Amino acid sequence: MKDKIMSRLRKDERKNSILQTALKLIAEEGFDSVSMRLIAEKEGVSEVILYRHFRNKYKILQEIFMTYAPKIIQSFRELLDTVKVMVTDLNVSLPHLAKLYINRIKKYPYFMRLIMKESGKIPEYLSKADKKTSIESEEYSYHKILYEDLKIQEVSTNFFKRCQKEGNLRKDLQPKDCTRTLLSIFLPLIIHSPLFPSEEPLSESEFEEVIARQIKIVQYAFIPPKKLKKG
Amino acid sequence: MKDKIMSRLRKDERKNSILQTALKLIAEEGFDSVSMRLIAEKEGVSEVILYRHFRNKYKILQEIFMTYAPKIIQSFRELLDTVKVMVTDLNVSLPHLAKLYINRIKKYPYFMRLIMKESGKIPEYLSKADKKTSIESEEYSYHKILYEDLKIQEVSTNFFKRCQKEGNLRKDLQPKDCTRTLLSIFLPLIIHSPLFPSEEPLSESEFEEVIARQIKIVQYAFIPPKKLKKG
Repeated sequence: MKDKIMSRLRKDERKNSILQTALKLIAEEGFDSVSMRLIAEKEGVSEVILYRHFRNKYKILQEIFMTYAPKIIQSFRELLDTVKVMVTDLNVSLPHLAKLYINRIKKYPYFMRLIMKESGKIPEYLSKADKKTSIESEEYSYHKILYEDLKIQEVSTNFFKRCQKEGNLRKDLQPKDCTRTLLSIFLPLIIHSPLFPSEEPLSESEFEEVIARQIKIVQYAFIPPKKLKKG
Repeated sequence: MKDKIMSRLRKDERKNSILQTALKLIAEEGFDSVSMRLIAEKEGVSEVILYRHFRNKYKILQEIFMTYAPKIIQSFRELLDTVKVMVTDLNVSLPHLAKLYINRIKKYPYFMRLIMKESGKIPEYLSKADKKTSIESEEYSYHKILYEDLKIQEVSTNFFKRCQKEGNLRKDLQPKDCTRTLLSIFLPLIIHSPLFPSEEPLSESEFEEVIARQIKIVQYAFIPPKKLKKG
């Protein structure tokens, strides 16, 4: 009996370990570049063992999505609900917002890179996993996760509208442009896009400092001079 | 004789047309997702015809690089030489800089997307084209083209240092951070990265307007309030 339980645990652990290995590989190399052979090699198992757990790499991607997508959607929904009730003083709310956002991305770095990298192709990949699958693959596209479902742009733009109404955002800026600026500046920093490939990877503390300095730049751009708090 | 010349022209035209078709496909789908069969199909020729011009898709990529990389390097070198002698009044130089930069990207939209998308993988792909090739594939990596060789970041940061010295950049900003902000804001707009996938494609005039409004935001962030010209 004990042996049976242990053996089942080990099987689950192996499955989970394969998913982690595959996720990291796919996030770094791109889905099309990763083969079952490569996944087996990096995991340190034979291909036979790998195929015992997953019929093909589409199945692996499907399992990755079934594991991570609901967690991420939940986590970002919570963040966006916070934005809806956040104070409009950008001196305090921008640093707080950045912190909440970064914490979430850091929690799922490879999955976030995967959805940024593969963008529109994910529904097609997932549809190859199983015709009878219970998940609707369109539900798990990059669009759906980061934009349509969560309405990041809408929530952010509504927040900047509130800021403007209360005199905390320069009158001649368009709230939608502020959303664009904010996402443009912070997304590449957070997901390590190839914007600055020649740059050394930032240490944890350097990263926090760069974020802080970029927030200051955004505050100079957005906050009416009279409302700006120096420091 | 006449026939021979015409036939040779047609052959060159076909080769060039294949390169255009392949470049567009690779820029949109990614190199690994594009097969010789797909290129032939989109070009509207048989695979036999395609293989008469190119032995494999690595050869096609190599030819794309041999065609575009020198043009782009030349074009950006000229732009950066301009930055070196540009006035430090950001009220006038930022809009001018954006215009020069955008004109260049617009001239080579697919090639720019290709190098952004494939990033570090290009040297590996090119090395598969031909061991005896005269081009050093490392020379044509994304790094080399946009960063190391052209020193975009260095030139931009030196420009902001000049601005600061002449009192045209806020004293408490780091010139390097200004480069980061500028590239972050304008690159995704220009190369249509998936930052705002749910957004409708912008028309030519909308695009110019968005750029102009983003420049205003950057000016608010960078220019000391006393030096800022409204309008």
